[in-house]
Amino acid sequence: MGTAALFHTYMTKSRLEAFSDGVLAIIITIMVLELRPPEDGYTLHSLLELLPTFLSYVLSFIYVGIYWNNHHHMFHMVDKINGAVLWKNLNLLFWLSLFPFTTAWMDKNYTQPLPVAVYGVVLAMAAVAYLILQKELIKAGGPDCKLAQAVGADSKGKLSGILYIAGISASFISTWIGIVLYSIVAIIWFIPDKRIEKFYSDDREI
Amino acid sequence: MGTAALFHTYMTKSRLEAFSDGVLAIIITIMVLELRPPEDGYTLHSLLELLPTFLSYVLSFIYVGIYWNNHHHMFHMVDKINGAVLWKNLNLLFWLSLFPFTTAWMDKNYTQPLPVAVYGVVLAMAAVAYLILQKELIKAGGPDCKLAQAVGADSKGKLSGILYIAGISASFISTWIGIVLYSIVAIIWFIPDKRIEKFYSDDREI
Amino acid sequence: MGTAALFHTYMTKSRLEAFSDGVLAIIITIMVLELRPPEDGYTLHSLLELLPTFLSYVLSFIYVGIYWNNHHHMFHMVDKINGAVLWKNLNLLFWLSLFPFTTAWMDKNYTQPLPVAVYGVVLAMAAVAYLILQKELIKAGGPDCKLAQAVGADSKGKLSGILYIAGISASFISTWIGIVLYSIVAIIWFIPDKRIEKFYSDDREI
Amino acid sequence: MGTAALFHTYMTKSRLEAFSDGVLAIIITIMVLELRPPEDGYTLHSLLELLPTFLSYVLSFIYVGIYWNNHHHMFHMVDKINGAVLWKNLNLLFWLSLFPFTTAWMDKNYTQPLPVAVYGVVLAMAAVAYLILQKELIKAGGPDCKLAQAVGADSKGKLSGILYIAGISASFISTWIGIVLYSIVAIIWFIPDKRIEKFYSDDREI
Repeated sequence: MGTAALFHTYMTKSRLEAFSDGVLAIIITIMVLELRPPEDGYTLHSLLELLPTFLSYVLSFIYVGIYWNNHHHMFHMVDKINGAVLWKNLNLLFWLSLFPFTTAWMDKNYTQPLPVAVYGVVLAMAAVAYLILQKELIKAGGPDCKLAQAVGADSKGKLSGILYIAGISASFISTWIGIVLYSIVAIIWFIPDKRIEKFYSDDREI
Repeated sequence: MGTAALFHTYMTKSRLEAFSDGVLAIIITIMVLELRPPEDGYTLHSLLELLPTFLSYVLSFIYVGIYWNNHHHMFHMVDKINGAVLWKNLNLLFWLSLFPFTTAWMDKNYTQPLPVAVYGVVLAMAAVAYLILQKELIKAGGPDCKLAQAVGADSKGKLSGILYIAGISASFISTWIGIVLYSIVAIIWFIPDKRIEKFYSDDREI
Repeated sequence: MGTAALFHTYMTKSRLEAFSDGVLAIIITIMVLELRPPEDGYTLHSLLELLPTFLSYVLSFIYVGIYWNNHHHMFHMVDKINGAVLWKNLNLLFWLSLFPFTTAWMDKNYTQPLPVAVYGVVLAMAAVAYLILQKELIKAGGPDCKLAQAVGADSKGKLSGILYIAGISASFISTWIGIVLYSIVAIIWFIPDKRIEKFYSDDREI
Repeated sequence: MGTAALFHTYMTKSRLEAFSDGVLAIIITIMVLELRPPEDGYTLHSLLELLPTFLSYVLSFIYVGIYWNNHHHMFHMVDKINGAVLWKNLNLLFWLSLFPFTTAWMDKNYTQPLPVAVYGVVLAMAAVAYLILQKELIKAGGPDCKLAQAVGADSKGKLSGILYIAGISASFISTWIGIVLYSIVAIIWFIPDKRIEKFYSDDREI
């Protein structure tokens, strides 16, 4: 590609990424607004009462971080974007934008099945939206594109799906099992993806 | 254009787009703040009470998504930007920035004519602001520019105008008719624009 | 400059602009949060009660728009940025970040001298911060740089200064005179700056 | 590097910087939300009651400004980024995202040891996160990279560490000593870093 063509491709990808980054940045920072200073106190006790809110913030922060990282890696391997990609990206952002709501509801009711299950349902919907976006990008890039090769069998994605369903179901027995299962999915994705990493090792830069 | 000239054009467009993206990203995320976790409940009933708020959020999210997509497509076809464009873009952002207010007012009073009509008025004003911006861009680019050719007769725009006026008027008879008409406009724009799409088919990238 | 050098300059300017755009975009959108849907009403009366809030939002939106436009034009003419510029830009953003506070205070107390005067003081401080930033950019670019030539005698800046001082003082006699004078400054800046415009006419793009 | 390679490196750095800028811009602007217009008053007295809130905002604004500046300078010297850098950057953003919480808690309880100490702990954790990120960037760039040479003995970092520990401890004796010590750290970093500045003097642009 000549410099002008590079600029054009760059601008579309860049704007899609910039908009996504903006939404993700605000989601993260809006979640922290739930962490209100205790109205009535300045004691260690009043600080410790915020612990469930703090821990759900940490979990949701890690999830948004994982999505940002994976979103970045995925688009880094992509050269062709079409109109459908823009909408499927917005679909992903829609589900991620519900994180502050489900996080706030869960941290206020972490012993109640429904808020914990709904938290998991939105996590799962975001994961589905991510897969739909990935499929569209592979469709646009063709079966031989870098992304198609990198994704491969996607055992991580399948495992996540099972864990989400297990977590949502388990919330109705014990909310702690649900929360632990959601956290395991986060840990799985936190560990760098060897499939994609190997594509970068040749470039020596992400 | 040489690389330096490309950088200059890129920087102005890029900054206008980046600022617009920032505002749109925040508008979307601020709207979701209306979706407060139910204060008193963790039951399905308390969740279902949020349904009107959720659905107005979905409608407004889709509208902001449409504007983001169209804004992107429009500026993608544009090479020349002047001072008037910057202000007409700000005018569009101003009307879009009122979405969180009108959405919040409507979802709390979805059976009342005025909030539903005002929601429609702000939608219509944003559409008018978009057309004014489009006209300025065509003026800057000349009658033979890509955008001028792509826009053509703009039957979609005209249809939207009629539907907005119908929706606003209908709100005073039944708010549901108003909301349905606003949703039809969203669906019309959601379906990709063939006029513009054909310009991309040659590039094979947006 | 070679492509690599262009990238370096671009990146610093771009990041400073992107950060400024982010802050300005959030300031604008946070101000609109003051425009809360009327708690108790869905009538025209309850909507009209929001008029002072709406009008102060419009005034502050236009001010932020002016700063965004002028900031853009100023940095467009600049090739050299140093560490002092970064801090002087942050100083400008600091004063602009107080707009949501002063706007909210004024629209709740638009007949009271102090809130209207404080609104003007923060406007004036932002204007001073802008001049300090401009001076630093000219210092970095040298007396022959484009910006230095474009700024020239800066009669607009001097007039604004007088009007701010007049407006702040007048607030203690009549808040309306204060608000009118602040609005006149906005109108003065809203009209495109011929000094800078003439530099763009050669490029035929901003 | 060819133009295409430059684009790739640029895009990763740019996206990491853009996302960080977004989060930092929102942190700054969310902090100012604490500065609520006095509910009951329009007098000088009611304005002066906001002074502690205003001053903690100023201190936290300067801290975020310092991080933004240093983050910019650090990434400006860096050519190679890997997956670990993305996560260590998110770790820094996590601690910075707690600033609005600790600032709000401290300004409401500035005479109480715990809120002032917690403010210092989060400042210190952000500093540690910054060092971890810096280390990872040096690891990625190699011992001869620009950043490794620029950082050198890092006496400023060591001094900050001592002052943070002193400030946190002192909060339990007098909160004023704690706040003064935190402010001294801000002043130390506010003064431009000669180690890094000398690397820029050759480029004549940041």
